[in-house]
Amino acid sequence: MSANFVKNALGRLVPTEVNGVPQVPYMGVGKHKPTGRKYAPQIVSCSDFPDDGNKTVATLKDALIKSGLRDGNVISTHHHFRNGDLVAIQIFDIAKELGIKDLVWVPSASFECQAVLTKYLEDGTIHHIEGSMNGSLGRFTSQGKMKGTGILRSHGGRYQAIQDGEVVIDIAVIAAPTADAFGNATGDRGPAACGLLGFALADSQYANKVIVVTDNIVPFPCYPWQIQGNYVDHVVVVDKVGIPEKIVSGTTEVTKSPDRLLLAEWTAQFCDEAGIIKDGFSFQAGAGGTALSIGIYFAEILRERGMKSRWARGGSNKYLVKMLEEGLLDYILDGQTFDLDGVRSMRENEGHVNTSPFTSYNYHGKGNFASMVDVVILGATEVDVNFNANVVTHSDGVLLHGIGGWQNCIASKCTILPIPLFRDRMPVVRDEVTTICGPGELIDVIVTERGIAINPLRKDLIEKMKNSKLPIKTIEQLKQEAEAICGIPDKPKFTNKPVAVVKWVDGTIIDTVWEIDNT
Amino acid sequence: MSANFVKNALGRLVPTEVNGVPQVPYMGVGKHKPTGRKYAPQIVSCSDFPDDGNKTVATLKDALIKSGLRDGNVISTHHHFRNGDLVAIQIFDIAKELGIKDLVWVPSASFECQAVLTKYLEDGTIHHIEGSMNGSLGRFTSQGKMKGTGILRSHGGRYQAIQDGEVVIDIAVIAAPTADAFGNATGDRGPAACGLLGFALADSQYANKVIVVTDNIVPFPCYPWQIQGNYVDHVVVVDKVGIPEKIVSGTTEVTKSPDRLLLAEWTAQFCDEAGIIKDGFSFQAGAGGTALSIGIYFAEILRERGMKSRWARGGSNKYLVKMLEEGLLDYILDGQTFDLDGVRSMRENEGHVNTSPFTSYNYHGKGNFASMVDVVILGATEVDVNFNANVVTHSDGVLLHGIGGWQNCIASKCTILPIPLFRDRMPVVRDEVTTICGPGELIDVIVTERGIAINPLRKDLIEKMKNSKLPIKTIEQLKQEAEAICGIPDKPKFTNKPVAVVKWVDGTIIDTVWEIDNT
Repeated sequence: MSANFVKNALGRLVPTEVNGVPQVPYMGVGKHKPTGRKYAPQIVSCSDFPDDGNKTVATLKDALIKSGLRDGNVISTHHHFRNGDLVAIQIFDIAKELGIKDLVWVPSASFECQAVLTKYLEDGTIHHIEGSMNGSLGRFTSQGKMKGTGILRSHGGRYQAIQDGEVVIDIAVIAAPTADAFGNATGDRGPAACGLLGFALADSQYANKVIVVTDNIVPFPCYPWQIQGNYVDHVVVVDKVGIPEKIVSGTTEVTKSPDRLLLAEWTAQFCDEAGIIKDGFSFQAGAGGTALSIGIYFAEILRERGMKSRWARGGSNKYLVKMLEEGLLDYILDGQTFDLDGVRSMRENEGHVNTSPFTSYNYHGKGNFASMVDVVILGATEVDVNFNANVVTHSDGVLLHGIGGWQNCIASKCTILPIPLFRDRMPVVRDEVTTICGPGELIDVIVTERGIAINPLRKDLIEKMKNSKLPIKTIEQLKQEAEAICGIPDKPKFTNKPVAVVKWVDGTIIDTVWEIDNT
Repeated sequence: MSANFVKNALGRLVPTEVNGVPQVPYMGVGKHKPTGRKYAPQIVSCSDFPDDGNKTVATLKDALIKSGLRDGNVISTHHHFRNGDLVAIQIFDIAKELGIKDLVWVPSASFECQAVLTKYLEDGTIHHIEGSMNGSLGRFTSQGKMKGTGILRSHGGRYQAIQDGEVVIDIAVIAAPTADAFGNATGDRGPAACGLLGFALADSQYANKVIVVTDNIVPFPCYPWQIQGNYVDHVVVVDKVGIPEKIVSGTTEVTKSPDRLLLAEWTAQFCDEAGIIKDGFSFQAGAGGTALSIGIYFAEILRERGMKSRWARGGSNKYLVKMLEEGLLDYILDGQTFDLDGVRSMRENEGHVNTSPFTSYNYHGKGNFASMVDVVILGATEVDVNFNANVVTHSDGVLLHGIGGWQNCIASKCTILPIPLFRDRMPVVRDEVTTICGPGELIDVIVTERGIAINPLRKDLIEKMKNSKLPIKTIEQLKQEAEAICGIPDKPKFTNKPVAVVKWVDGTIIDTVWEIDNT
């Protein structure tokens, strides 16, 4: 890539062009005003689809060929099967077999089970990935080995980009735990039940061709139908779409680490003292052990005081489900289920609602759920003294994580990051983060095991906490404490080659991920 | 209107231009292939909407002004409140007060309670109506009094037209029995519960500005949310959106007329002998007394044989609900509830599913539900010897009805019209219908009290019924019997001025409604 670079509103150097497409640099929260129109898919006609609604074709290969698979196509998949996905790799195996080149893969997230796709990035079957590049795929990208430049988007940013036509998907392949021959599909039942299919909603609405792949075909109608058959071209029945035991992955148990428990306790106490926990409040916590523990503290407080939360945003898990079932919570507005209790609850409980990045996160809508959440609790790999935070690279500069819903969630009324002050003797609070994923103005509170820093912009929170017994410190104090223990960290060494860009929720570029310099 | 006219594929004279917009004449079933792209609404940004999700404004007038109401705007409403609607008239009262002119009203259907709007058609506040013109509004139109030309569309055709940008809605006003301040809305609960809000779906998705009006505001989230707040600009809380006792209107009891009961019995018997009624079959019957009675016959047959229907398309009513509750039916895929049992069932029963014209009827989708239905039972004002049928005008030429879902439904695997052979001594089966709404090739069976005619195209049905004891006759025989009793009817007299056009499901013009000649 021989693009020019400009400094964006956060002072980060970002390319003016990515993969040949002109880009807008990040301009500040709410500053970039879109002027165009949404992407307009081709009008189709029922006369080109079977009257009896039976859209099944024999194999995924047939479906891809019927969908016109060719060089340079943009292919999308969703990640609701997480590390148990069995479909994405098949697509590229077929493409390789057919001699197709330069595909763009747009997963809603990638997982380690897809690490094998590096071979197709190497042989030119895949040109580049637009989506999270976790683990091995991230390391591959950081090493400058990907032909094109990666584009990282949040879940909401992905919806925005597809809706706005920044990404035009040629073929969406939607793996579904249950579907009918018309293409209606649900994630909440079937042998590979994964909860919901919301990450594939934009794909179904805007892709030129849509293929549903299922291992559990039921007579019409498949209901609920989070994916509507009226958007679907072909249905393929396979033996197995996902490995159930790997669908539920990640940390699903509360932490036992004393440090993490302290973070959880302090975070809950902070929320309580700041008046956030009250009857009818709303919250979102991630899937990690700390976040799970915070949810348990919230539940205890509500139970004791005879209050309840009106709604929580999922990722759902057994703790959230328990709150719903106990009546401590009216609704779980769920974006992805993190364990089997979440899947069961979504299937059984009307208060456990499947949502999508459109309802929850899309910044180019008439509002979304994320900004209405009273408090959101998230992680970060690094935070700087301006409260800017990083979630995609580590302090060694290597791209190892996707953004997920993180950028979208920090729009909440109060964003708290409970994080260790250092990891492996590397300070987490520092002068400058390796990659800015979220601007500091949206991050309100940092909770570490050595103290809590409130963003100076949040004078209201500082005022509320002025008599607290919690160890309120400045972010600079936290940084100094970290450096006193670990020393001042070296900055990672990069070449001047961008390997990926990080989009903000409005489609602008907030930062660049650079090639690791191994010399 | 000084448009030119052409003969379409059914030999009907249709204008090449309506209200200044070029038109495509009907070309035959499935013959018109759309080439364009769907309508692309302006991209919006959350930065222009309140972070806390509270979109309430004080009055409908404020909301209309904030939405930029001005001369020539296209304003849409839905008809789920049927004859109990209290919102549509208010919109035009406000427009009149503000001195706005030449509005286009696009209701999903109009009702007699809106007859008062003729005054705004007369004074220029409303230029013309695109939507059903029932009763008084239809008569007004037939008399040539509407400034512009009316456009009649089926429910599916309305979705198609909005999706394809043939109708660009400036402001959609969605009256909702329950909503939250973000604009999520449902029809299944609240003091004016009307069942569902599916007819407003396209409006919410494609209108430039969307206003939700409710008399029952609930804390976020309003769930279910058939209308999603992410599409909504403003929310208005009023005292009363609908008159509950008038929401449920139309015939909701089985017929007691011996002639109608005979039609019902023969229709059910026909379906049974033709092998249509079998385990897992699907059906749709309208709301009239005859149709209700047919449903009861179907239920009896299923009960006796220990079979069940997989799904029925609603308009739902207490008889359909009873089948669902009795286990004779797995799913009601409902487009509108016709009585309070329907509303209750939709609220309570997971098998009673709210649908929309998108899922059920839109011809410019990747299939729809209507063509999958095994048998559909509908009415008609007239049928001709080529099985062409009319549902909008009477034999005196006056426009008195909307199309509803009728055009969409005749895509089913078997379309049966149980109709009286004559009404008020006017033959219903005739040489030529006054207005063609559906082409004969899609109408399979005519059941009258004097005999049953099978469309000669359906050789399979003729073969199946060849040993039936039912009085199978030709359509010509039926016509002759009607004329033997009533005489050959006079044709209505028209001027050469078109007052409305009837669109086919693909947006082409299937026929013209002409001004009544009263000279």
